[in-house]
Amino acid sequence: MSANPSPSLPPPDTATVTDVARLAGVSISTVSRILNGNSRVASDKRQAVEAAIQKLQFHPNLSARSLRSGSTKTVGVLTQELESLYFTAGAQGVEEGLTGSGFAPLVVPGHWNPKEELDRARLLMARKVDAMIILGGSLSDDQIIEIARHLPTAITGRQLTAPNVFAFGFDQAAGGAMATRHLIELGHRRIAHISGPSTHADAIERKEGFLNAHREAQLSVDPRLIVEGDYQEEGGRRAAHQLLDAGLQFSAVFCANDQMLWGARLAFYERGLAVPDDVSLVGFDDLAQCRYMTPPVTTVRQPMHEVGQAAAYSVLQALGVAQSPERPRAELKLSLIVRGTTCKAVS
Amino acid sequence: MSANPSPSLPPPDTATVTDVARLAGVSISTVSRILNGNSRVASDKRQAVEAAIQKLQFHPNLSARSLRSGSTKTVGVLTQELESLYFTAGAQGVEEGLTGSGFAPLVVPGHWNPKEELDRARLLMARKVDAMIILGGSLSDDQIIEIARHLPTAITGRQLTAPNVFAFGFDQAAGGAMATRHLIELGHRRIAHISGPSTHADAIERKEGFLNAHREAQLSVDPRLIVEGDYQEEGGRRAAHQLLDAGLQFSAVFCANDQMLWGARLAFYERGLAVPDDVSLVGFDDLAQCRYMTPPVTTVRQPMHEVGQAAAYSVLQALGVAQSPERPRAELKLSLIVRGTTCKAVS
Repeated sequence: MSANPSPSLPPPDTATVTDVARLAGVSISTVSRILNGNSRVASDKRQAVEAAIQKLQFHPNLSARSLRSGSTKTVGVLTQELESLYFTAGAQGVEEGLTGSGFAPLVVPGHWNPKEELDRARLLMARKVDAMIILGGSLSDDQIIEIARHLPTAITGRQLTAPNVFAFGFDQAAGGAMATRHLIELGHRRIAHISGPSTHADAIERKEGFLNAHREAQLSVDPRLIVEGDYQEEGGRRAAHQLLDAGLQFSAVFCANDQMLWGARLAFYERGLAVPDDVSLVGFDDLAQCRYMTPPVTTVRQPMHEVGQAAAYSVLQALGVAQSPERPRAELKLSLIVRGTTCKAVS
Repeated sequence: MSANPSPSLPPPDTATVTDVARLAGVSISTVSRILNGNSRVASDKRQAVEAAIQKLQFHPNLSARSLRSGSTKTVGVLTQELESLYFTAGAQGVEEGLTGSGFAPLVVPGHWNPKEELDRARLLMARKVDAMIILGGSLSDDQIIEIARHLPTAITGRQLTAPNVFAFGFDQAAGGAMATRHLIELGHRRIAHISGPSTHADAIERKEGFLNAHREAQLSVDPRLIVEGDYQEEGGRRAAHQLLDAGLQFSAVFCANDQMLWGARLAFYERGLAVPDDVSLVGFDDLAQCRYMTPPVTTVRQPMHEVGQAAAYSVLQALGVAQSPERPRAELKLSLIVRGTTCKAVS
């Protein structure tokens, strides 16, 4: 951007595509191809157009363009919390998946509040996004299906089959069983569980997995060893103190997400208990920070980056955007990542 | 949203404000006030309008509205990395600052890439956002000033005085000195520094603060104890291993951000060194996870939530949006948070 355009140029914000084409010495259709994110334009022409755009302070009027072409080259990303590590991993994956497509993400938060989520989805639709990617949240299946009547819609964290809907959900009960089975195989017999909020479907399913793994191994579960947390660090810390205060015996804890594990780990530290020597811990999610805790955290990995990428690819495909065949397609599945917070039970 | 609108209603996406007003039994101006986020509407009217909006599947056409009223009730938030803990804290603060104003944030990432940042700023302006909040990044002062010619613009991470620009920067050298002085006061004399990338102004300033604090205390600095990192966990880990491999003596490290501290802390763990008994560590930022590391991390707090809030308040004020006077205004300053990763040097 030039702070002092020369007087022969049109005043700021009034330049048209024609002005840009004339100044750059290219055709209007070349300018249009560049503005639309088409990568097949010779780089000298691209440079000339970019220089002209800067010199003219030209802002392509996407509002007007959307009325003509119906495309704004944007994908709405309805997330829940801008600061949640779990959701930012998904949003980052979406962005990586859109890279090079000419489509930009517009991210808005919904806060697990059905009314707010619907308002924000409407905001994005009113801004004429070309597709929608919904990360988790509490919209009903019917609401998702309704949104997908208007534009390609990807949704993570649930399984749903409907026209124009691309759903990416995992079997959370299988994940809970995977975590618990690991502890049982290490010889732990009194295993506590810090669950997620009982209002969250995935928390209920992970707890079912915990119970199923015990059943498989013909072990009984002491119901006092199951404490409800809130998926936040502080809730995990509180739950661990609660288990210790109750004077219950246990040698391991399956925490329904990593953030609660971090809080529980701090509680054990505050009580002078060593991880994993005194108590083994398994989490869920594999947030990036798990590798840098000391000791690094054993957890069930949900590949949220890859899920975000896959969601982006699916809506791009639905929009008919060509994608290079060599684009890597990760296998989307839960897996146990064994690091340093678990060890054999002392017999 | 109703999946099956009754046949007497207009088809989906064709309803107008007039249709909404008629169905809700209110005036068009009442509908308009609600759509514009005006809170002074009786709640029964609001409910009737919201019910009508749902029934009619009405999407206010903000593209068209923006051409008329010039306002889209959105604030563009140009961040750098969707997944960076530092930037998400700022974005979360922006969102909290906008809460209740009727303005929604539209978040896009710029990746510390001047060309990409400019493209994304243009995208937001073309989408007719009412104001812009830029979190860090590498746009030049002139580019920020140019953007602010078009709409109120807040920028974090730098100091800049210009019309329509609201800048929120901290004295990073003072912060670096604060961290280092703490270690000197604890008796440490051989203090290492893992710096940020030498291309980042704030990294250079924090290093200056490290040097200034030594000068104040009339202590010399061994230049071999200064190692450049990359502001990421892995860079901090690598830098700490490098310091140990060089066989240099040191009893404390000032890490230029928390993420590098986490990586360095893992390196010391891998080498069997205890924190803080063998080596004291001070970070920078006070990311939320610092409280849950074991031991919890001593660091220089940058109040990024509060900065994001203040940025939101400033652009709302510039847009003439009334704000309640009792809205808390946090004092924006750096502060040292002493937790468990520092202790007295063994004499």
